[in-house]
Amino acid sequence: MSPSASIPAQIRVKRRGLMFVLSSPSGAGKTTIARRLLDVEPELSLSVSVTTRPRRPSEVDGVHYHFIDRQHYDRLVENHELLEHAEVYGHGYGTPAAAVEGALDSGQDVLFDIDWQGAQQLRQQVSQDIVTMFILPPSTEELARRLRKRAEDTDEVVAKRLAQIAADVTHWAEYDYVMINHDLERSVNAARSVLVAERLKRRRQVGLADFVSQFREAPAL
Amino acid sequence: MSPSASIPAQIRVKRRGLMFVLSSPSGAGKTTIARRLLDVEPELSLSVSVTTRPRRPSEVDGVHYHFIDRQHYDRLVENHELLEHAEVYGHGYGTPAAAVEGALDSGQDVLFDIDWQGAQQLRQQVSQDIVTMFILPPSTEELARRLRKRAEDTDEVVAKRLAQIAADVTHWAEYDYVMINHDLERSVNAARSVLVAERLKRRRQVGLADFVSQFREAPAL
Repeated sequence: MSPSASIPAQIRVKRRGLMFVLSSPSGAGKTTIARRLLDVEPELSLSVSVTTRPRRPSEVDGVHYHFIDRQHYDRLVENHELLEHAEVYGHGYGTPAAAVEGALDSGQDVLFDIDWQGAQQLRQQVSQDIVTMFILPPSTEELARRLRKRAEDTDEVVAKRLAQIAADVTHWAEYDYVMINHDLERSVNAARSVLVAERLKRRRQVGLADFVSQFREAPAL
Repeated sequence: MSPSASIPAQIRVKRRGLMFVLSSPSGAGKTTIARRLLDVEPELSLSVSVTTRPRRPSEVDGVHYHFIDRQHYDRLVENHELLEHAEVYGHGYGTPAAAVEGALDSGQDVLFDIDWQGAQQLRQQVSQDIVTMFILPPSTEELARRLRKRAEDTDEVVAKRLAQIAADVTHWAEYDYVMINHDLERSVNAARSVLVAERLKRRRQVGLADFVSQFREAPAL
């Protein structure tokens, strides 16, 4: 059910969508929270990236990624049509600006499940529309437990990952909101609260001036 | 039940409280929302003003107001110990800064049920700690209905009030958040979401740097 479903049309104020960026070191639960948010928030959809990497059999073009060739990708980069982009293992990945702008303009929110490098690039491109949240694991011990559970890795591999996480986690200070993911249910609710609150920000409710104009005239008594 | 009751002590990050300012034209439901918020949010308490007006029999000193004499009041004004103050019908009213600062410092939030004049003064005094929300009635018709229900006033009195409201409502554009109070339940939840979100703001969680420092050291494997 849409949260605005039961609001009468005459008080539904036009709003501009927002870009909700979730980042975290690996193992903090970001992707689970992102999925849950998408399930319960009909006005929120995941940003679909472009990539030059070949499609895997399980992937659907336009859902998991927009699969494009290198020439197309390079042109998008050159024309500044990507909000952020990165090369990973020789393949290009990026966020097409036009799709995001279309969503925001129609009052839809876009979710970004990206790392701090991507978030830094987005912040450079966009200022008012972006809301960023960093998710922290509850402790290093819990993090080590999660990493070991997830993969049957050697201690050496886990140690290497923890070192990477220690480096990634230092970027918490660049985010608007910071949340410790101690309890999934609580974290999903907290992330939803951020969405609800940010939608109520005056500057996102572009239809307010119109709505308020009715109070200029006294009603018939 | 405190929302932080079930959070283990080691991940309870010290935070600085916030000043939550609710304003609205009369009849928009602000005071009802404020009362409901205070009922359900144990970390939120109402700011208690000082006043030179005589105590009414139903009022308790230190609960409804701090009742002080004019000399005391003038000294507070002179020494800039009030965050905002106003003269109403020959009596002084004001918000003592020290009590608010004490609450914020101990991680307690303070609620202000004040008009746009008071909010303007608060904003001048405080910048980072203040979160402001303006509450709008759903329509002029609904507003007229509410005003008529509330008091057995003549059409003339209601018309005069509506004119005042028309003037007050123009200050919506000075607030961080704007909410149309169409449904009380929904509005209380939305105001709570703003509180939850604002508490998660990185800059209010003054204990985060400490918390995050644990990730610098790899845990024993």
